[in-house]
Amino acid sequence: MDFRTLFKVTYGMYIVSSKKGDNINAQLSNTVVQISPDPATMLISISKNNYTHECIKESGVFTVSIISDRCEMTDIGPFGFRTGRNYDKFANCSYELGKNGAPYIKDKMCGYIECEVINSHDCCSHTVFIGRVTEAEILNHDLQPMTYDFYHKELKGKLSKNATHYHAEEK
Amino acid sequence: MDFRTLFKVTYGMYIVSSKKGDNINAQLSNTVVQISPDPATMLISISKNNYTHECIKESGVFTVSIISDRCEMTDIGPFGFRTGRNYDKFANCSYELGKNGAPYIKDKMCGYIECEVINSHDCCSHTVFIGRVTEAEILNHDLQPMTYDFYHKELKGKLSKNATHYHAEEK
Repeated sequence: MDFRTLFKVTYGMYIVSSKKGDNINAQLSNTVVQISPDPATMLISISKNNYTHECIKESGVFTVSIISDRCEMTDIGPFGFRTGRNYDKFANCSYELGKNGAPYIKDKMCGYIECEVINSHDCCSHTVFIGRVTEAEILNHDLQPMTYDFYHKELKGKLSKNATHYHAEEK
Repeated sequence: MDFRTLFKVTYGMYIVSSKKGDNINAQLSNTVVQISPDPATMLISISKNNYTHECIKESGVFTVSIISDRCEMTDIGPFGFRTGRNYDKFANCSYELGKNGAPYIKDKMCGYIECEVINSHDCCSHTVFIGRVTEAEILNHDLQPMTYDFYHKELKGKLSKNATHYHAEEK
């Protein structure tokens, strides 16, 4: 078995956010897909280690901000590789609270999708959250979504130890 | 709500195959993601209308062939837009049966991932199948995976009425 095959699967790059009481949090993710058309339903996979996981579990909502290829590591880096439990990831970014109460990022983002969790599935280190789309807006029609491939090759972005295929890369 | 936002999510292009007794079948899909690293777990979303759905339900296995950007519509077209119930989709393609008994496509493919279904989730028109990776091989290291964007823009590929975001495009 060649685990490198799993890296041939194509992904985009996203900031997945949620809230917990008065707190908000967000993290980088590549694992976002639409799984059904009507009602429109999105699926994300989040590491149980992450504070965002705790927030989604409690609030039952999440928002996906779609990162564009205009973003630099200075724009999106603060959302990865460290926990929002004791660090304000939003300190230097422009954001707004959406209708579901979770924040969406405004600068250099293609758009955002708000969801309400309708189901979840335990998957060892990760939980898959399935969300009904409650809001979706394009922020900039001229921007192209950033691919995971671009993130690695152009931005030299690293893999988080909580990524859905971290173990695969190690091998 | 602007449903066009959902088209800003990035996907690859795949042929998802399975078997039912002595029959094999396969279909085009863009909805393939890895959701956890250890054990490596993949997720696909398949329309209940599709014969592949019936095959996966019965056999409990599926294989993902990763389409490269060298493929033309003549290579991958036969796997979409018509049912394998009364048409042999494999007539003009080179394939082999994998260890799980489902076929993987050989020509112009980056590689393939074999899975054993460990869970499924009903999602209205679609079923999400979660599979443990049992085999994964790269067939050609020089090929680049085809993105869904490339499929639409370069190959002028159409959306199946059973796609996970068909309804969204209509709107």
